Amino acid sequence: MKKLNIGIVGLGRLGKEYVKNLTYLVPNAHVIAACSIRKEELDYVRDTYNVPNLYTSYEQMLEQQEEMEAVVIVTSTDQHSDQIIKAVEAGYHVFCEKPLALNIEDCIRVEKVVEKHSDRITMLGFVRRFDASYADAKIKINEGLVGTPYLLRSQTVDKDTFAPFQIEFCTTGGGIFHDYNVHDIDLAHWYLGSRIEKVWALGGAYRFPEFGLAGDADNTAAMCELQNGTIAVLVASRISSFGHNTCTEIFATEGNLKIGDPPVKNMLQIADKHGIRREGMETFFDRFQDAFLTQIQSFVDHVLQSKQPELTMNNATNATLVATALTKSFKEKKPVTIADLIS
Amino acid sequence: MKKLNIGIVGLGRLGKEYVKNLTYLVPNAHVIAACSIRKEELDYVRDTYNVPNLYTSYEQMLEQQEEMEAVVIVTSTDQHSDQIIKAVEAGYHVFCEKPLALNIEDCIRVEKVVEKHSDRITMLGFVRRFDASYADAKIKINEGLVGTPYLLRSQTVDKDTFAPFQIEFCTTGGGIFHDYNVHDIDLAHWYLGSRIEKVWALGGAYRFPEFGLAGDADNTAAMCELQNGTIAVLVASRISSFGHNTCTEIFATEGNLKIGDPPVKNMLQIADKHGIRREGMETFFDRFQDAFLTQIQSFVDHVLQSKQPELTMNNATNATLVATALTKSFKEKKPVTIADLIS
Amino acid sequence: MKKLNIGIVGLGRLGKEYVKNLTYLVPNAHVIAACSIRKEELDYVRDTYNVPNLYTSYEQMLEQQEEMEAVVIVTSTDQHSDQIIKAVEAGYHVFCEKPLALNIEDCIRVEKVVEKHSDRITMLGFVRRFDASYADAKIKINEGLVGTPYLLRSQTVDKDTFAPFQIEFCTTGGGIFHDYNVHDIDLAHWYLGSRIEKVWALGGAYRFPEFGLAGDADNTAAMCELQNGTIAVLVASRISSFGHNTCTEIFATEGNLKIGDPPVKNMLQIADKHGIRREGMETFFDRFQDAFLTQIQSFVDHVLQSKQPELTMNNATNATLVATALTKSFKEKKPVTIADLIS
Amino acid sequence: MKKLNIGIVGLGRLGKEYVKNLTYLVPNAHVIAACSIRKEELDYVRDTYNVPNLYTSYEQMLEQQEEMEAVVIVTSTDQHSDQIIKAVEAGYHVFCEKPLALNIEDCIRVEKVVEKHSDRITMLGFVRRFDASYADAKIKINEGLVGTPYLLRSQTVDKDTFAPFQIEFCTTGGGIFHDYNVHDIDLAHWYLGSRIEKVWALGGAYRFPEFGLAGDADNTAAMCELQNGTIAVLVASRISSFGHNTCTEIFATEGNLKIGDPPVKNMLQIADKHGIRREGMETFFDRFQDAFLTQIQSFVDHVLQSKQPELTMNNATNATLVATALTKSFKEKKPVTIADLIS
Repeated sequence: MKKLNIGIVGLGRLGKEYVKNLTYLVPNAHVIAACSIRKEELDYVRDTYNVPNLYTSYEQMLEQQEEMEAVVIVTSTDQHSDQIIKAVEAGYHVFCEKPLALNIEDCIRVEKVVEKHSDRITMLGFVRRFDASYADAKIKINEGLVGTPYLLRSQTVDKDTFAPFQIEFCTTGGGIFHDYNVHDIDLAHWYLGSRIEKVWALGGAYRFPEFGLAGDADNTAAMCELQNGTIAVLVASRISSFGHNTCTEIFATEGNLKIGDPPVKNMLQIADKHGIRREGMETFFDRFQDAFLTQIQSFVDHVLQSKQPELTMNNATNATLVATALTKSFKEKKPVTIADLIS
Repeated sequence: MKKLNIGIVGLGRLGKEYVKNLTYLVPNAHVIAACSIRKEELDYVRDTYNVPNLYTSYEQMLEQQEEMEAVVIVTSTDQHSDQIIKAVEAGYHVFCEKPLALNIEDCIRVEKVVEKHSDRITMLGFVRRFDASYADAKIKINEGLVGTPYLLRSQTVDKDTFAPFQIEFCTTGGGIFHDYNVHDIDLAHWYLGSRIEKVWALGGAYRFPEFGLAGDADNTAAMCELQNGTIAVLVASRISSFGHNTCTEIFATEGNLKIGDPPVKNMLQIADKHGIRREGMETFFDRFQDAFLTQIQSFVDHVLQSKQPELTMNNATNATLVATALTKSFKEKKPVTIADLIS
Repeated sequence: MKKLNIGIVGLGRLGKEYVKNLTYLVPNAHVIAACSIRKEELDYVRDTYNVPNLYTSYEQMLEQQEEMEAVVIVTSTDQHSDQIIKAVEAGYHVFCEKPLALNIEDCIRVEKVVEKHSDRITMLGFVRRFDASYADAKIKINEGLVGTPYLLRSQTVDKDTFAPFQIEFCTTGGGIFHDYNVHDIDLAHWYLGSRIEKVWALGGAYRFPEFGLAGDADNTAAMCELQNGTIAVLVASRISSFGHNTCTEIFATEGNLKIGDPPVKNMLQIADKHGIRREGMETFFDRFQDAFLTQIQSFVDHVLQSKQPELTMNNATNATLVATALTKSFKEKKPVTIADLIS
Repeated sequence: MKKLNIGIVGLGRLGKEYVKNLTYLVPNAHVIAACSIRKEELDYVRDTYNVPNLYTSYEQMLEQQEEMEAVVIVTSTDQHSDQIIKAVEAGYHVFCEKPLALNIEDCIRVEKVVEKHSDRITMLGFVRRFDASYADAKIKINEGLVGTPYLLRSQTVDKDTFAPFQIEFCTTGGGIFHDYNVHDIDLAHWYLGSRIEKVWALGGAYRFPEFGLAGDADNTAAMCELQNGTIAVLVASRISSFGHNTCTEIFATEGNLKIGDPPVKNMLQIADKHGIRREGMETFFDRFQDAFLTQIQSFVDHVLQSKQPELTMNNATNATLVATALTKSFKEKKPVTIADLIS
C-alpha cells in the first residue's frame, strides 16, 4: 500500500490527536515529521508515536524533509495563512484546520497562491461535513428525500465549564463568530447551496461579563440572507450547563432534517429522581472524534488519488468573510452586507 | 338531549373523579344519586357537584331511586360482584371499576346473572383501552400496519412514594398481580387476540421487605403463554423513583408498537446539570385522566344506544383468572395452568 | 355555584369549540346568548348546545341580553377592536381571541377604552400561556431552575395540507406574521421579561409561489432585539409535511428549556420499514385543545373573582406592534424599530 | 512500544474485521499469522493487511509460528473449544469469539485446561460489555447511582432481511438461544451479580415457518430466576422490520437504566410524511463496531500486562449452560433448572 508521507505542524491537544489518528488509524498515512516550538510536545510525539523527524522551525521542516509529501497544519489561526502559502509554494499538499484566517486579506492571499499551484491538493478542515449524521443529511437532501432546503438553523454551543478559560483568549481567536460559527456558516453554504450575502448579529455577555469587557460575547444569534433567497439562523453559546450542543435543523419544502439533537453522550438512559434523562457531552471532541478521523482519511485519500476535495480554500474564505461580517454587525449594531467588506 | 340518570356508589378519590366527570364533562349524563358509608363524602358531592339524592345504604339507593337508570360502582374490590349482581337484578345498567373480583367464583356468579339479563348494559372498567395511544395502537394493528402481533411486554409501575401506604392494604386488594397486572392481562388478551393459558410468575420484596412479610411483592415479572401460541411478559413494580410508568410494547410480524414510553409528564424538556431530561408523572391518574373520561362517556353512550360494549364482564373474568393464576404461581414457585384453576 | 352568563359572537370552527367548552366543560359558565350572521351556525348551537338566545346583530345582543355579564369574541380579526370597545362600553366583561387587531391605531383605541373602564375584566387569548408545558416552563423559570433567560427561539408551523386554503385569505388575516408569529411574540415578551424593540424579518414563498404573489410568504424567520438586551428568533411556516409543529426553546444562564419538541400526536411509537417514528399532529387544535379550555376557564374564574388577569389588552397591543414591524421589515427588506411605528 | 504478536484463525466477515482492527487500530498488536481453510481469504488478508504468514492448518500455525504469542479465534462455534485447548496447551494466550461452545462438556473441558495453565491469558468475547453505553451502565451501578438491580430485560433482535439466510444454519449455530441470547445471559449475570438457576422459554416461528420445521424459532421470550432472587427476562427475534435492536433495561431499587433504546443509526432525525423518525441499524456490527475494537484492545493490553481479564472462560461456560437450558425448556415446553443439566 502506498503511504502518504506527512509532516505536521502544531502539537497542541488537537495536533496530538491528528498525530495519533495519522499514526494508527489512517493506514495509508505515515507521519515522518512534526514541528512545534515546544520541545516537550516534540518529545511527546517522538516517544508516543515514534515520529522520527522533529523540528522547532516550520521553514526548516519544509526545506529539509525531502521525502515529505504533505503538510498538516494544526497551529493557531493567525499562522494558518502564511504556513499554507509556504507549504504550497514549497510543493507540498496541505491540510489546514479551520478557520483559514481571521481577515479577508489573508484568505485572498492564500487563494491566489493555491490557484497558481492547482496541482497541489489543498483542503480546509470543516469537520462537521465528515460527521456521519451531517453527511447522512447531505445524502438525504441530494436524494431529494425532503425537497429543497430553504431555512437552516445551526448552533455551536460549548459546555460552560470551559468558558472561564476562554475569556483570556477570546479575541486572539477572532471572537465567538470566528471561533464558533465558522462551522455553522460553512454548513449553511453547503446545505442551502448558496452563499450568505447579508447578516445581522446580536449577542451579549449574559453570564460572564468578562467577555463583554473584552468586546466579545458569551452568546450570540445571527440571521443571514443568502444569495438564492434562503435563510440561515446561527447561534453560538459558551455557557451550556449540560454539555456540548452542536445541532442543525434544515427546513426543506417536503420535510425537515435535524442533526445532533438531543446532544447525548451515548445510548444510556437514566431514570431516577431527576427524571428521565440522558447525559450530555463534555466537548466538541466527544461529539466529533470519529469525524476528525474520517476527515483526515479523506484528505490522505484525495492526495494519493490526485483529486481535489469538495472542501476547498474558497469555502474557507467564504466562511471567514461571513464570520467577519457577523463580528462587524455585532460590534456596530447593524446589518452588514458581505459585498461591502470586499469592495 | 336525552341524559342518562346515574347513581354512583363509592366516593373515594376515584369515585369523586367519576362524579366530576359525569357532572361536568359527560353532557348526556346526570348524576342523580350517590352512595357512601362516609357522611363527609356525601356532603362533599352534594356541596361540590349538587348531587341531589344521597344514600348510606346501597340497597336503599337501588330500591328508592326510581328515575335512576344506571349504576356506577367505584367501591373496594371485595364489594364489586355483589353490587353488580344486585344492580343488574334490580334492573339497572352497570359500569364497574376494575377488577371484577379477586376470586373466580365471584366472577362466575356475576357472569351468570349478567347473561340472564342480557338487556342490561354492563361494562367493566379497563381504562387503558380508552387511552388515546393504546386505542391508536389497536387501530394500527387492525389496519394491518405492523402485521400480526405475537409478543407483548406490558408493565404497570407506580412511583415509590406511594409504596409505604400500600403495605397495609396490599393483600386486601388481592396483591400486586390483581392490583397492578390486571390491566396488562386485559391488554394481552386484547392485542394478541387470544387468552393466556399458562403462567410463571417471579417476584420479590427488593426494596420494602414489608411486602414480603405480607406474602406480597414490591416487584414481579411473569411470562404467559396464550392459547394461540403467542407470548406475554408482564411486569409490576411499586418502587419507581421517577414516576408512574405504564408502558406496553407489541412485537408484530411486520413492525413494533410501543405505547407510553418514555413516561413523560408533558412536552417540556429540561437540560441542566442533571442532563437532558423530562419529568415523570406522579400517579396513574396523571397518565390516564383523559382515558377515564373517554371510558365513562363510552359507557353512557352505549347505554343510551342500547348497545353492549366491546368490554364485557367476561373480559374481566378472564383477567381475574389470570391474576389468580399469577398469584398462585408466585406463591407456589411453579408454573400454573389456567385450566387447572377452574376444573 | 355562581355561574357567569356569557354571550358569544363568532361561531366558526373555533367559536363552536368555545360554546362546547363553556357549555360542558366550564362548570361555572352559562352560555345564554350567541351571535352570528350565519343562520345555520345559530341553528347549530341552539340544537347542539341548547343556547337559548340567538342574534344576528351583535349590537342587539349587547342591548337586549340583560342578564348577560360577559362577552366572548371569536370573530374575524378585523372586527375584534370595535366589538371589544362596544362590549366594554356597554358594561360587559370581555374575552377576545387573538390577535387584538392588525394595526396599532385599533389597539390603542381599545386600550384607551379598557383603561377608562378598569372595573371591566378584559382578557386577550394567547392560548399558549395556558398550555401545561408552556406554563410548566414559566414555573420552572420563576423558580430559578435554569437561571435567567436571554435567548428564545419560537416557531409556529402548520401542516402543509392547509396551505392551499390559506392562499386566498392570507392577507385579510394580516399575513403570516400577524397570523402565526403573534403567539411567539407574546411568548418572547412573557419569558424574556421585556419587549421587542427592533426586528429584521426574512421570508419567501418557497413552495407555494401564490403567497409571494399575494405579498405574503409561506415561510419566514425573524430576529428580534429586546429592550433588556435579550434576543428572540421567530420562525413561521405554512408547509410542514409531518404536521403542526409549534415549539419554543429558551436559553437561560443555568439551563435550557424546550417546549413542544418533538411535536408528536400521542404516546405511540411505531417502528417499521420507515424507521422508528412518531406521528405528528394535524392542526394547532390537536396541540392546544386542553389549553383552550384552561384559558376560558381562567377568564371565567377571573371575572367571578373580579380580578384582572395577567394577560392584558396591553400584551396584545405589544404583540400586534411587533407583528406589524415584522411585516414592514419583510416587505421593505430592512430592520425596523418599534419606536418608529408609533411615533 | 512492545507489540503483541498475534495469529488469527477464522477469516470470515468478523475475522477480517479483527484483522483490520488489529492491523490498523490496535497500536500494540501485530498480526503475524492468519489461518483459514479458504485460500481466497488468506489471499485477501495478505493483500489487504500485509499479514506475512498464512496457514491452511491451525495445528501448523500453532507449531511453526514461533514468535507468535497469542491466538485470536473467530471460527465457527463448533471449533472453539478444541482450538482454545490446543492453543493454551501450546503455550499461547487466547481470545475467542462467543460462544465458547454449544454443549457443557466442551465448556468444562476448556475450563479444566485453562485452569491448569493459569499463566496463559484467556478471554471470551462478550462484546457488549465493551460497548460505551453498556460499560457506562455498569459504572453507574457500581457507583450506586440507581441502587441495587433486581430485574433485567434484555433482547437481541436482528433485522428481518437476514432471516432467510439464517434458516439453513440455525441449528448448526445451536439455535436462537445460543446464537442470540448468549449475550443477554452474560449481561444478566454481569449486572445482576448472580447466576441464572431456573428458566422457562417460549417461542415460535411466527413469520418464517421454516425455523419451526428446523426445530428452532424466529422469536423467543424467556424468564429466568437467578440464585440471588433477581429476575431476567430475555427476548430474541430474527424478524425486526426496522433494523437491529439490541437493548437492555435494568430495574434497580433507586432508579432504572436503559441501554440502546431507541436503536437509532445516527444523530439524524427525519420528519416527513411518514412522521418524525430515525432510521435503524442494519446489523449488530453497525451497533457494536466500536465495542469490537475496544474489546480486542483490552485483550491485547491484558496480555501485555500479564493480567487476567474480568471476562473469563467461566463466564462463557455459565452463559452456555443457560443457553442450553433455554433450548431444552423451549423444546420440552417446561421450566428447566440449571443444576439438573450438570448433575
